[in-house]
Amino acid sequence: MHLSGDRLADYCRDLLVRCGVDGRDALTTGRVLVNADARGVHSHGVIRMIGYVDCLRSGGVNGAARPHIVHEGPGNALVDADRGLGIPASVFAVEVARRKAGETGIGIVNVFNSHHHGACGYYSQSLAMSGLIGAAMSTGDIIMAATGSAARAIGNNPFSYAVPAGRYRAVCYDVAMSQVAAGKISIAAEEGRPIPTGWLLDPDGNPTRDPKQYDLGGALEPFGGHKGYGLSIMVETLAGLLSGAAMLGDIHAWNTDPRRSGNVGHMFVALDPKALNPGVDLPARVERMIETLAAARLAPGVERILYPGQLEHEREALAAAQGIELPPAAMDALSRAGEHAGLPFVPETLTM
Amino acid sequence: MHLSGDRLADYCRDLLVRCGVDGRDALTTGRVLVNADARGVHSHGVIRMIGYVDCLRSGGVNGAARPHIVHEGPGNALVDADRGLGIPASVFAVEVARRKAGETGIGIVNVFNSHHHGACGYYSQSLAMSGLIGAAMSTGDIIMAATGSAARAIGNNPFSYAVPAGRYRAVCYDVAMSQVAAGKISIAAEEGRPIPTGWLLDPDGNPTRDPKQYDLGGALEPFGGHKGYGLSIMVETLAGLLSGAAMLGDIHAWNTDPRRSGNVGHMFVALDPKALNPGVDLPARVERMIETLAAARLAPGVERILYPGQLEHEREALAAAQGIELPPAAMDALSRAGEHAGLPFVPETLTM
Repeated sequence: MHLSGDRLADYCRDLLVRCGVDGRDALTTGRVLVNADARGVHSHGVIRMIGYVDCLRSGGVNGAARPHIVHEGPGNALVDADRGLGIPASVFAVEVARRKAGETGIGIVNVFNSHHHGACGYYSQSLAMSGLIGAAMSTGDIIMAATGSAARAIGNNPFSYAVPAGRYRAVCYDVAMSQVAAGKISIAAEEGRPIPTGWLLDPDGNPTRDPKQYDLGGALEPFGGHKGYGLSIMVETLAGLLSGAAMLGDIHAWNTDPRRSGNVGHMFVALDPKALNPGVDLPARVERMIETLAAARLAPGVERILYPGQLEHEREALAAAQGIELPPAAMDALSRAGEHAGLPFVPETLTM
Repeated sequence: MHLSGDRLADYCRDLLVRCGVDGRDALTTGRVLVNADARGVHSHGVIRMIGYVDCLRSGGVNGAARPHIVHEGPGNALVDADRGLGIPASVFAVEVARRKAGETGIGIVNVFNSHHHGACGYYSQSLAMSGLIGAAMSTGDIIMAATGSAARAIGNNPFSYAVPAGRYRAVCYDVAMSQVAAGKISIAAEEGRPIPTGWLLDPDGNPTRDPKQYDLGGALEPFGGHKGYGLSIMVETLAGLLSGAAMLGDIHAWNTDPRRSGNVGHMFVALDPKALNPGVDLPARVERMIETLAAARLAPGVERILYPGQLEHEREALAAAQGIELPPAAMDALSRAGEHAGLPFVPETLTM
């Protein structure tokens, strides 16, 4: 079933409004989640609504939150998310970063007292679409091993950057620091398939191909060994420690217990390339970089060389024309969210 | 043989002065290279002197270069390295970034017309030692595959960040975007050992365990697949495209032909944590993060969990006490550099 992105976002808004969220913040949240689904990043799409609704209903997340600046300098600001939803707080912080970049060429905004904010790439790409270099990162609860640990020790701390790319829209890189997302392991567990080594440690710290070990307390492995682990420490430091948010094991796992906020931290960076180097036409150079890389001699069996974000841009264009197909797990999550909020999910009313 | 770091740096200075470099810049260059050797990062140490000397003697690198600011804003600057050595230009740029961070909380400095600048970690750690969050990155000539390419398509573009860490000195992360440095592959080739898969593609783009394929034109593989590749694009964009330096295949391989400058680009970032969030004692939080991670339950066979830079700090402390042992390849490179510059390398005169 192909759903209309607009109608789906409106439905998310209606659920969140029933949980006490301001109408505009609720619509923003719906739109950011639906954008992830349109781009094929279903792990960060409307599947998250059940968690958001439950957190709001139990008071773990503050529906009446008003994100606000508590400290600022010429090119920087610190935002208190007021224990509310992460998406409206992040959109607020990104607007502050955009304004600072307009004024001084640079905007760096930290956020604390925040919550899950969907796909990091949304924020960096939003900055790139106004001609800025953007970056976004966030802490999360501990689900990944440190290099050398058996136990879960750190979040898989997502990081994204985006750069305006002229006719290619934007380079938009958006990754977590684990080899794969936990969601992929859950799907393999449901389907009874073994996973490749390098994805997961069992609770004793041994590499395992059994995806069920994750729910038994196993830890995701960092991508690229110590190189990915060191990047997760970078995000923990910039988004968490510097912002004054919780760190490491003190970040509450809101998706397993909705009654407490995660006190997640974020950092957003906006740089105006025209202010940093007026002599360079950055989008034109990025176009040339993309074309040069795409023209490289292909390895056997490879059809094309992609730039970061290219596949997601293609999926988004398709979704705009044809609507969004949600995976069963997302349909199920919305259905439960609708029950909990008292507004049933009737997908037939949300088609294109 | 244990060499004195100070005497080794003085010897490097003397060689560079004979090639037309100003005495202070020459000593800076020697010290930065020797610091890499002290930290065990011999691939970025005095082994580079032969390349620097040859580039200077052939005019590919300008010995009389004066790095200077060509554009600036409240928290940013653009530096023309004047086609000189990369290390003095980078030290100059880092001082500009440090000053801007002192004035506005943020300093972002791009450099173009530059050259190889040793280990990126030197610059970010230098910022961390004055209480700032530091980052450093640089482009390089193309030696790595794009995800999907058979051919060399992009540099392995090093990236470093460092954070003040109180009694732990600094978290200092310093990596290239390839799975391993080309130097490790050359050593395996010399020793006739096969390399693990995942390090190298042969010139047809097939994974190979034969290290000799590198010199035949094989491409290094990015670490973490597309995740490492996407980070190399980030560094190419921030350090190269934005700074106005050469990009991708236009970056000249100065270490194979010294007669032309690489026109390498860099970016340095300095953030003052006290300006960004006066309410947080960042080094104290970093100490706690390091201790919490180190206390995680260990995986089988692991003795300790390290923070980025820890091993290098330990080696540096040892080198300060005992002197520096150079690997044979570095001894040989210095010896050739001494011949080319007309000041023979007599290691016996440089001992502790």
